Amino acid sequence: MDFHIKKISNLTLEKTIQEKIDNKTKPIGALGMLEKVALQIGMIQNTDLPKLTKPTILVFAGDHGIAKKGEVNPYPQEVTAQMVYNFLNGGAAINVLCKQNNIDLKIVDAGVNHDFGSITGLIDAKIDFGTQNYQHQSAMSPKQCNAAIKKGADIVTETYNDGSNIIGFGEMGIGNTSSASLLMSFYTKTPIAECVGSGTGLHGEAIKVKQKVLTEVYNTYTPSTHMDMLMYYGGFEIVMMVGAILRAAELKMTIIIDGFIVTSALLAANAMHPEVLDYCIFAHTSGEQGHQKMLDFLKKEPLVNLGMRLGEGTGTAVAYPIIVSSINFLNQMASFESAGVSSN
Amino acid sequence: MDFHIKKISNLTLEKTIQEKIDNKTKPIGALGMLEKVALQIGMIQNTDLPKLTKPTILVFAGDHGIAKKGEVNPYPQEVTAQMVYNFLNGGAAINVLCKQNNIDLKIVDAGVNHDFGSITGLIDAKIDFGTQNYQHQSAMSPKQCNAAIKKGADIVTETYNDGSNIIGFGEMGIGNTSSASLLMSFYTKTPIAECVGSGTGLHGEAIKVKQKVLTEVYNTYTPSTHMDMLMYYGGFEIVMMVGAILRAAELKMTIIIDGFIVTSALLAANAMHPEVLDYCIFAHTSGEQGHQKMLDFLKKEPLVNLGMRLGEGTGTAVAYPIIVSSINFLNQMASFESAGVSSN
Repeated sequence: MDFHIKKISNLTLEKTIQEKIDNKTKPIGALGMLEKVALQIGMIQNTDLPKLTKPTILVFAGDHGIAKKGEVNPYPQEVTAQMVYNFLNGGAAINVLCKQNNIDLKIVDAGVNHDFGSITGLIDAKIDFGTQNYQHQSAMSPKQCNAAIKKGADIVTETYNDGSNIIGFGEMGIGNTSSASLLMSFYTKTPIAECVGSGTGLHGEAIKVKQKVLTEVYNTYTPSTHMDMLMYYGGFEIVMMVGAILRAAELKMTIIIDGFIVTSALLAANAMHPEVLDYCIFAHTSGEQGHQKMLDFLKKEPLVNLGMRLGEGTGTAVAYPIIVSSINFLNQMASFESAGVSSN
Repeated sequence: MDFHIKKISNLTLEKTIQEKIDNKTKPIGALGMLEKVALQIGMIQNTDLPKLTKPTILVFAGDHGIAKKGEVNPYPQEVTAQMVYNFLNGGAAINVLCKQNNIDLKIVDAGVNHDFGSITGLIDAKIDFGTQNYQHQSAMSPKQCNAAIKKGADIVTETYNDGSNIIGFGEMGIGNTSSASLLMSFYTKTPIAECVGSGTGLHGEAIKVKQKVLTEVYNTYTPSTHMDMLMYYGGFEIVMMVGAILRAAELKMTIIIDGFIVTSALLAANAMHPEVLDYCIFAHTSGEQGHQKMLDFLKKEPLVNLGMRLGEGTGTAVAYPIIVSSINFLNQMASFESAGVSSN
């Protein structure tokens, strides 16, 4: 699939927005990262009066062939489907946070190993009943990989057509920190063992097993294209997010990047189209150890670091009010002149 | 004034709340600092069903004798009064953030060098038209110091009686980073020069002048009691916050601690009654360099670090939604049992 993403550059507008920020009734730079976010969103939206409409988080759920064995995951594979039901019933962390912060939440079956039938509230984008176990064969076929990218992109287009101009992504998939670690190793050239972390709760010896298993998997394949890499190591939910991120940038939406898994999808999107980073705001630093290394690789600093490592897009949802604050100060604060305050 | 603050300790309740947190549908500990905040507020409110009512930020404004000379402050003293008008007109950063996050905002004239008359929306707690210049004499008299503590406490009592159980503090006072630096040096035993930072925007040589001036001031006095210290080095807004913090803890309110100036008031409150820390949540790390050292001294880690250094309580206001998220996940998320999700 082709994506046409525009590098953002408009020095005149950048100067206009920066002057507007500097004339607000506060010392220069005193709103710290809020000022940077306001400037970035203004540049994305090509205006000094940006606004956020219909903020949306898409949660992609998918299963992983390797998780059936339980070597890399403390929770059984069934939890993916159980958590999808939890999302649909409003009981998960992402539900609570989206409700609090007025974020639309959409749940996507990217490839869960469960037949949900025609259940209300679930977007059916199922590629298959989980990926294959990449210990033995490629996680998915080229056809599946392309379909996943296209479906991710299409769902973003629908969200955009529905009036959203700011979007975040979350995921659910028992075993998907393994897939994300493989992507991370490939794109950041970090040895796979250093990419592996505790996931949903591995400790000590169990992490060593995960490292050993994934080192073998990593060395089994020699991907020569991005599509190879996604096909060998991917999960359906991760590949779908790659398509979703690229389409969101193509549509000039503001993209909020969540934790370890979402950032692994961004690493792939960025390798294909580096302009994508112009559209990305980084929400939080995950407690999963590899995430900081991914952020270092991308040279990005997120808004918050709360030790969260839950997935689902919860980092994006919890940080969202700070992004709103950025836009609000730019649009609502008085200037030195309008307030009659002496500047220095 | 006497304050009676209760140390919080209830192992049975602590265990109950922690088990409730651990049974939510997420890996153990996966909500990071949100879990700690939820536990702390539960303990403060003595329940596993805590709620936040009428969140309020009190902004105390006061002038400083030393600021008339302009040696330690890039903005002229008049800006304190001008900013109070800006608060009352809704144009400042704190107005925008409080409006966004449904926080009640009260503005208090603790001692601005301006006659506001009987203007609507301003709480008149004026001790005097600014403090004296501590380069030449004690900033305030013992009587003024006691009055400021009492007024701060009284305003908190009114806020509590009005239905608030969570409170934060902000300040406005050209020159008040100097006062805060003096308090910091006294309580943390950090040499005064290391407590001094750029305030609202000093650079290079100007910071050296500020260090020199404040070193002389620091050495002019030998406070032997907390009241001495506040009287010699204080500002009216800072002393009022000491009384406000102590009363809020006495009333078992959750206290949100903002940046450099507010934390300087907390250092004094903590020295008088160390139990006060049980009631405090730290909102943000200020960009003012001394704040991190204060936090290290108190061994506390704030929720966010956004490089903000604006005062007014803006750090508290911007971080408040994260505190709401803590309470919401505790009260609204499903448990493994209720959601039918397998735990590990």
